Amino acid sequence: MKRLSLVALAASLASVQSEGLDIDAVNPKIVEAQYAVRGFILDRAREIEADLAQESHDWPFDEIVRCNIGNPQALGQAPPKFAREVLSNVVLPKTPRWGVSKQVRERADAYRAAIQGGVGAYSESQGITLIRKEVAKFISDRDGIAADPEAIFLTDGASAGVRHLTQLLVSGPQDGVLAPAPQYPLYSAMATMYDGTLGSYYLDESADWAAPVAEIAKAYDDVVARGATPKMLVIINPGNPTGASLPREALEAIVEFVASKPGLVLMADEVYQENVYGDAPAFISFKKVVHDLKSTIPVVSFHSVSKGFTGECGLRGGYFELTNVSEEVKEQLIKLASVSLCSNVLGQIAVGLMVNPPVDGRELKAYEDEKAAKLSSLERRANEVARALDALDGVSCVQPQGAMYLFPSITLPDAALAAAGAAGLAPDAFYALKLLESTGLVVVPGSGFGQKNGTWHFRTTFLPPEDQITAVTKRLAGFHDAFLASFKAPAGEL
Amino acid sequence: MKRLSLVALAASLASVQSEGLDIDAVNPKIVEAQYAVRGFILDRAREIEADLAQESHDWPFDEIVRCNIGNPQALGQAPPKFAREVLSNVVLPKTPRWGVSKQVRERADAYRAAIQGGVGAYSESQGITLIRKEVAKFISDRDGIAADPEAIFLTDGASAGVRHLTQLLVSGPQDGVLAPAPQYPLYSAMATMYDGTLGSYYLDESADWAAPVAEIAKAYDDVVARGATPKMLVIINPGNPTGASLPREALEAIVEFVASKPGLVLMADEVYQENVYGDAPAFISFKKVVHDLKSTIPVVSFHSVSKGFTGECGLRGGYFELTNVSEEVKEQLIKLASVSLCSNVLGQIAVGLMVNPPVDGRELKAYEDEKAAKLSSLERRANEVARALDALDGVSCVQPQGAMYLFPSITLPDAALAAAGAAGLAPDAFYALKLLESTGLVVVPGSGFGQKNGTWHFRTTFLPPEDQITAVTKRLAGFHDAFLASFKAPAGEL
Repeated sequence: MKRLSLVALAASLASVQSEGLDIDAVNPKIVEAQYAVRGFILDRAREIEADLAQESHDWPFDEIVRCNIGNPQALGQAPPKFAREVLSNVVLPKTPRWGVSKQVRERADAYRAAIQGGVGAYSESQGITLIRKEVAKFISDRDGIAADPEAIFLTDGASAGVRHLTQLLVSGPQDGVLAPAPQYPLYSAMATMYDGTLGSYYLDESADWAAPVAEIAKAYDDVVARGATPKMLVIINPGNPTGASLPREALEAIVEFVASKPGLVLMADEVYQENVYGDAPAFISFKKVVHDLKSTIPVVSFHSVSKGFTGECGLRGGYFELTNVSEEVKEQLIKLASVSLCSNVLGQIAVGLMVNPPVDGRELKAYEDEKAAKLSSLERRANEVARALDALDGVSCVQPQGAMYLFPSITLPDAALAAAGAAGLAPDAFYALKLLESTGLVVVPGSGFGQKNGTWHFRTTFLPPEDQITAVTKRLAGFHDAFLASFKAPAGEL
Repeated sequence: MKRLSLVALAASLASVQSEGLDIDAVNPKIVEAQYAVRGFILDRAREIEADLAQESHDWPFDEIVRCNIGNPQALGQAPPKFAREVLSNVVLPKTPRWGVSKQVRERADAYRAAIQGGVGAYSESQGITLIRKEVAKFISDRDGIAADPEAIFLTDGASAGVRHLTQLLVSGPQDGVLAPAPQYPLYSAMATMYDGTLGSYYLDESADWAAPVAEIAKAYDDVVARGATPKMLVIINPGNPTGASLPREALEAIVEFVASKPGLVLMADEVYQENVYGDAPAFISFKKVVHDLKSTIPVVSFHSVSKGFTGECGLRGGYFELTNVSEEVKEQLIKLASVSLCSNVLGQIAVGLMVNPPVDGRELKAYEDEKAAKLSSLERRANEVARALDALDGVSCVQPQGAMYLFPSITLPDAALAAAGAAGLAPDAFYALKLLESTGLVVVPGSGFGQKNGTWHFRTTFLPPEDQITAVTKRLAGFHDAFLASFKAPAGEL
C-alpha cells in the first residue's frame, strides 16, 4: 500500500513544474548589492590555494597571503591572553579551584553569574546588563561624560549593529544613506539591500583623506535631487579603507552639518578607535564632540572586538551606543534584537573583556605590555608598507594615521588600461588579479570601495607578521615593477 | 580661540532643529512587527523581579519562573559536558598537555586548526569547512541520503538563517509567506519586517495540531487573492508552540502541495528534531521525504544547538541545508553571509560538537547517558504538565509529542472576557498577566502565536527542573481555580 501510494505520488510530481529555487526568485536588491572585501579576487585566491595544496604546482609562490581583510589573527597575531583565559573558564560549569589566577576566576565567575543559567542561556536581548555597565564605564572614562548602560546594545560584531540601524531607518528609495567614497562596503551593501538611496561623498586624498563637509553637503543635495531624504550619514573614523584619523575641527564641522539637517542620524563607525598611530590626531568620539557642542543630534557609535589590538574577529562581539535617541526608538531596536533572541553570549563577554581589562597586578602588567607591543608593531608595519608603496613608480600612498589599511593610488599605463578593458575588468581589479597570480598576495581593488572617476587604488592591510612584512613588501614591489615594465614594453605581456 | 569657536558653534546649533531621533523616522514595518515571546508580559515580569530583589515585597511568591521561552539552561539544565570541555580548550592558544582527555584534545586541536588563525579569526562566510562536513555526515547518517557540505551554511542560531532566507526571497507586498497559526512568531515578524504578505494556515487542534494541506491551500489562495505570490511555506516540525510531530503521510502531502506551486520554497524549521517523545511519530526530515518522492521542490532545513538536549541557546549556533537550490542562489546567500563576515566561530564549533559527539570510550558512554537522561526527563515533565493542565476546569491540552512547549486551550467565563476587555487586553493576555501577578510564572498568551478566532490559549515550556515541576504545576492549577472562581462569583474580583 505504502509503496503504491509513493509511486502514485511520484508520478503526480513528475507532471508538475517545481524545479527547485532559481535566481529569478531572489530579491533583486540582494542581487544588486556588492561586497568586494570577499569578492571575486578571493574566489580566485581559493582556487589557487587548492592548487598550492597539491604536491606540485606551477605558481611562482607557495602561499596565499590575505591582505584583503582586517583579520589579524589569521595572519599570526596572538589572541589577547587574559581574555582568552577568562573565556576558557566561563564555559565550564565552575571555574576550577586550581591553576587559575584570582583575577581570571573572579571575572569568569562574575560573567557566569550575570546570566541566569550561564553562558548557555539566552541573555537579555539588548545584552548582558553587567557588560553594558562595563561598556558604559569604558565610554565615560574615555570621554569624561556619563554613559548610560540602557543606551548600549551588545551585538554580533559591529556589522550586526549597522544592519539593525539600517533596517530601522531605511525602508525604501525615499530613505537616503550618505557614505564616504572610498568606504568600507558594508554601508553601500546595506543601503542597497534595504532599498535605500545611496549618496557618496568623496574623501580628499590630497588632504590625508579628510571628510570635507562641502562634499557631504553635495552628496546630501544629490540624494535630495533624486527624490530621497538622507536619514543616515556614515562617518568612519579612523577611516576604512583610508586610515584617516579626523581632527576635532573636522568632527565639529560634521556635527554642525548634521545639526542643520533634522532627521539625519550620524552613524559613527569608531571601531578603529584604538588604532591611531604616530602624531596623527588622537581619536575623539563623536559623542564627546556632540556633548561639548551641546548639540542634540542623534548619534550611533559602533565598536567591535575585532579590531584594536584584540583582533577577536571570530568571536563576533560588538556594541553600539545611542545618543539623543528617543525611548520609543530604543524599544524598536530592542524588538529587533529580540527577534534573534540575543547576540552570542561569548562575543558579549569578549566585549566586556575588551572594555574592562585586568585591574592590577601581574595581569595588568602583562596586558599593558601586550597591548603596547601589538599596537606599536602595527604602527611600524603601517609605516614600512606605506613608505615602500609610496616609493613605487606611479604609486602614491598617504601617510597612515590609523586603522589597519592603506589605500594607495596607482597610475597605470594606457596599455594596462586597455588590457584590463579587454579582460572585462576595472583597471584596479585587473591589477589586483595580476598581483594575486604573480605573488599570492590578496588585496581588494579600489573600485570595491568607491573612488573618484579615473583614479585607481587598492586596499591592503599591513597585518602580515613583522618578520615577514619586508618580504611581503618586496614581493609587491617586484610585481609592480614587472607589471609596469610589461605594459611599457612594445609587445607588453605579463 | 578654541573656546570662542565652540561658543559660536553652540549658538548656531541652538537655532537649528535637530532634536534627536524620534519614532516618526522609523521604518513602519519594524514598528508593525510583533514578537510576543519577549513582549509586555516579560516586561512586567522584570518589574516584579526588581520588587522581589528588595528586602521586603508584597508579592505572594519569591521568584519569577520563565516558562515563556525555550531556554533550558536558564531553568537549570546542565550544559553538555564534552562540548564545553572542547570549547574551554579551543579558545586557548594550545590545548594543555595535561588534564585533558585524548578525545577532547583531538577535537579542540582539529577545530583550532580548521580556521587559519584559530577561533579569533573570521572563518569562511558560509562556515568552517570541517564543521560543514561534520553536519553533512550527520544529515546523511540520519537520512540515509548523501549530503553536501557546500549546501550547508552555519549561522548565528537558526533565527539568523531564517532572516537570510526571508531577506533573500521577500522584498515587498508581492511576496507571500505562509506560516502556521499558531506559529513561533519569528516567521510573522520576519514577513512583516521584510514587507511581505503573511498568510496563516490553521493547525488542527482536534487532530494533535496536524498541518492540513487543505488549510495550507486556503492560505495560499488567500494570499494570491490579496495580490501576492507565496514564496515561502513555513512548516515547524516538531511544532512550536504545538509540539506536534508530523507523520510521514502529512509530510508527503505537504511536499506534493509545494510541488504543485512552482516558486514556493519549503522552509522546514526542524530545530526540535531530537525532541520527540513517547509513541509520537518519529522525526522524519523533509529532505528525506522529498528524496523518497523523487521530488525537486526547494527545501531549506533549519537546525540549532539551542534545542534538542544540548540547549546551548547563548552560544548562537545553527545551520541550514539547501536542497534543490541553484548555484546562483547559493552565491547570493554566500554574499549575504559575507556582509556580516561570518557567524560566530564558537557557535559554529558548538554545531560541530552537536552533530559529531564523542566517538568512543568513557566520553561516549557519558554523552549517551547525559542525552538519554535529559531527553527522558523532558518527556516526563511534558507529560506531567500536560496531564495536570488537561485536568483543569475549562482547559484542554493536546498530548505532547515533541519540542519544548504545551499550548493548552482555555475557556474563560464571560465575566473574565469582560474584565479583559475593560483592561484593554486580549483574554489570554489578561489571563497570562494575572497568572504572572499571582504566581510568578511567565507564559506567553496564545494571541502572540495566532489562533482560531474566539479560542484562547497560552504557551508554556515544561522546562523547570524535574524536582520543581510538580510545585510549578500546582501553582498554576491553584491560580487557575481561583481565577475561575473569582469570575464565577457574583461580585467576582481577582
